[in-house]
Amino acid sequence: MRRPKRLILNAFSMNCVSHIQQGLWVRDDTRQLEYAGLAPWLDLARLLERGGFDTLFLADVMGLYDTFRGSGDTSIREGMQVPANDPMLLIPAMASVTEHLGFAFTASVYQAHPFTFARQCSTLDHLTGGRVGWNIVTTYLPNAMENLGLDDLPDHDGRYDFADEYLEVGYKLWEGSWEEDAVLADRTRRIYADPAKVHRIDHVGPNFRVAGPHLCEPSPQRTPLLFQAGSSDRGREFAARHAEGVFVITSRTALAAGTGPVPDIRRRAAALGRNPDDIAFFQGLSIVVGGTEAEARAKEAAYLEQLSTDGALAHLSGALGVDLGAYDPDAPLESFRGQAMQGVVRGLLENAPSGTRTFRDLMRANMAGQFLTGTPEQVADALVEWGEAGIDGFNLVYSTTPGTFVDIIDGVVPLLRERGHLEDGYRPGPLRQKLFGAPRLPDRHPGAAYRRRPTGPASS
Amino acid sequence: MRRPKRLILNAFSMNCVSHIQQGLWVRDDTRQLEYAGLAPWLDLARLLERGGFDTLFLADVMGLYDTFRGSGDTSIREGMQVPANDPMLLIPAMASVTEHLGFAFTASVYQAHPFTFARQCSTLDHLTGGRVGWNIVTTYLPNAMENLGLDDLPDHDGRYDFADEYLEVGYKLWEGSWEEDAVLADRTRRIYADPAKVHRIDHVGPNFRVAGPHLCEPSPQRTPLLFQAGSSDRGREFAARHAEGVFVITSRTALAAGTGPVPDIRRRAAALGRNPDDIAFFQGLSIVVGGTEAEARAKEAAYLEQLSTDGALAHLSGALGVDLGAYDPDAPLESFRGQAMQGVVRGLLENAPSGTRTFRDLMRANMAGQFLTGTPEQVADALVEWGEAGIDGFNLVYSTTPGTFVDIIDGVVPLLRERGHLEDGYRPGPLRQKLFGAPRLPDRHPGAAYRRRPTGPASS
Repeated sequence: MRRPKRLILNAFSMNCVSHIQQGLWVRDDTRQLEYAGLAPWLDLARLLERGGFDTLFLADVMGLYDTFRGSGDTSIREGMQVPANDPMLLIPAMASVTEHLGFAFTASVYQAHPFTFARQCSTLDHLTGGRVGWNIVTTYLPNAMENLGLDDLPDHDGRYDFADEYLEVGYKLWEGSWEEDAVLADRTRRIYADPAKVHRIDHVGPNFRVAGPHLCEPSPQRTPLLFQAGSSDRGREFAARHAEGVFVITSRTALAAGTGPVPDIRRRAAALGRNPDDIAFFQGLSIVVGGTEAEARAKEAAYLEQLSTDGALAHLSGALGVDLGAYDPDAPLESFRGQAMQGVVRGLLENAPSGTRTFRDLMRANMAGQFLTGTPEQVADALVEWGEAGIDGFNLVYSTTPGTFVDIIDGVVPLLRERGHLEDGYRPGPLRQKLFGAPRLPDRHPGAAYRRRPTGPASS
Repeated sequence: MRRPKRLILNAFSMNCVSHIQQGLWVRDDTRQLEYAGLAPWLDLARLLERGGFDTLFLADVMGLYDTFRGSGDTSIREGMQVPANDPMLLIPAMASVTEHLGFAFTASVYQAHPFTFARQCSTLDHLTGGRVGWNIVTTYLPNAMENLGLDDLPDHDGRYDFADEYLEVGYKLWEGSWEEDAVLADRTRRIYADPAKVHRIDHVGPNFRVAGPHLCEPSPQRTPLLFQAGSSDRGREFAARHAEGVFVITSRTALAAGTGPVPDIRRRAAALGRNPDDIAFFQGLSIVVGGTEAEARAKEAAYLEQLSTDGALAHLSGALGVDLGAYDPDAPLESFRGQAMQGVVRGLLENAPSGTRTFRDLMRANMAGQFLTGTPEQVADALVEWGEAGIDGFNLVYSTTPGTFVDIIDGVVPLLRERGHLEDGYRPGPLRQKLFGAPRLPDRHPGAAYRRRPTGPASS
């Protein structure tokens, strides 16, 4: 008998009022209005660890979605990813009340100098005992670039070239600056570290000059676990090169047919010399659980009823770079296919249900199409099927927080454990070790090439 | 009878092995080797709050001290501010186990874009309930500038011009972007915020273009409490313009004579239209407490014995920008007076004891001169005298951590409370309110000029 596939559970949230499902913050069974304080995050972290989740993934933006109707007004009115506080700063507090839960956060390669950012990642990896992941993004919101003084948005592929160099600087600092045995912490000889084993990186590239050495000694994972969600051709190439976790929106049909992002990125990774099994793919899903199927459907119907169309349009317009407020929602989708399309939206279009012909249909699909609704048994069955189709884990969007996660933990997780798809406890060690078996980048990952061979007599 | 002066207690530390007193990390009664994890910081925060400290102030650097003997080898060997992890990331965890303690951290205006940094400050102010302070520095270590690709260190005064604009961007985001009543969080009307009350800042200056709006809604303090430690002429002008807390090294003699940084910065602040009482001055001190004077002296002698001369020279060389390894330690001090001198060192020189004639003497003064050693009664008497001389509070350097702070809390704090110089508990509200009586910048602070007059009917 085949061993059941271990599935990875990732809770998806953001340090803001309204993240993916717009308009539900008004419900009295969700804590979204408390986002700015520590309390809901400490509670969420404790809950997710009790429930055996692998990671909490915090999305982020560096600007306003201001495409819809030519302004950010709808986003502000809806709390639609604005206000949006920094995600990284939630992690140390959540780490202090958990032992195993991983924390991934989004940060754009344009928001901070790589020396400053690499140091923050290392600090987080130290503070959490190696439980940190970074979701690499190349900012696409025009307002984000205006906020950072980069109004002339570099072209899409150019941004990935910039990101490649940003990662190169990171790898040099994380992997190459401090040798494994540089730190002695020898009280008797009064030597903290051996200067012969701490190296400048002297990076010089088109975008950055960084001398080093890294200011941080090696952390449990060195390089944080790397996530990515790019869906364009160049984005998939970038993911294939760097990512260890990839967020996708695909379908079981596409997976069965060997199409869509999953097999494509695995093929690209192999072509780049990586082991394609060193990448885990996470399908985005909105799970709605009820004691009976009818109860679950009623819950879903209530969410759909309360979802904000304006909020969804503002979100989608920004993601598409197209003001959907200026278009007839009943115009055929084909008229927009030539436009630049981002991440989730591109995936949505590619996997839109067969009845999807207009933007109004797509919006409905955006709001409803990702719902996975049913009894705990039905949901668990579906997750197992996703796993059998080739998905490694799930990026779980909330309708209410922490309600959606409570329902999954109380209803679905015990079934997945019974069936052997989740372990009862956590594996030991840092996040990368829990998910992939070893705490450091695998040898065939490009970051590993920046490691130094050990020098000197203290090395073995 | 005059009311006793309330004194402010600030614990001084850094996210590294060895901060100010070099070489003492080898002792077995200090937790410096645990710096990279959360545990010592959570314990320290709890301790300081139990002991009535107002703030914990975390220093920082963005590069190696690599002037001494032409390399960073001594710094690395001594753990002398390298490794140095990010200080900001300790604050959320420490805030989660405290209610009143303030947290100030150093950040250079060169390490992050002001839009990114202002957002991190606002996030911290939200997460801590308004307990955050920022110590503004203009990086001076050449290696820090090499790490950030700014090898041609701007001239000293030019760096303060850059910092002025950085602050201007901060004020516009913190004070001017979101009106006081912009956030409605109205579940019934389904309106999170009123777009008419959220404004772009459209900053355009010599160094930055920042569109806004700020991504964060108003936090308890809006602008974090602003600290500064500049001691040059331009640095004092900068402090007089922006700072609400100033770290100094002065003497009671200078204070009595109306000389040194304290009266100078107060005069400059008044000339700039500020209320000079809106600035608190913190004297740096290393307190050593013993049950008897002899016990205290023996403790001090043990510290002096264990202090590392090389570590101190590496620190001083970097701060001075002069390789003291290349000079005769017995050369007269006068031969260096023309050099650019930074912060603490300049203060040390100005206030060096009368016998200080050579660098060897100055090093001794650097190591021993700031010790305030005695019984709890003697130390309390001295602190009260400092207060009467015009100092508002103390920036307390550790010899061992948390040992130095435990000694102060158990011995000195109760006496200061008895005498009315410290309160038994904490005043309510954000950090600025605790220290200055109101949570927001005072009207005569230059940051207040960026506030918007309320608009629209919802305002009162």
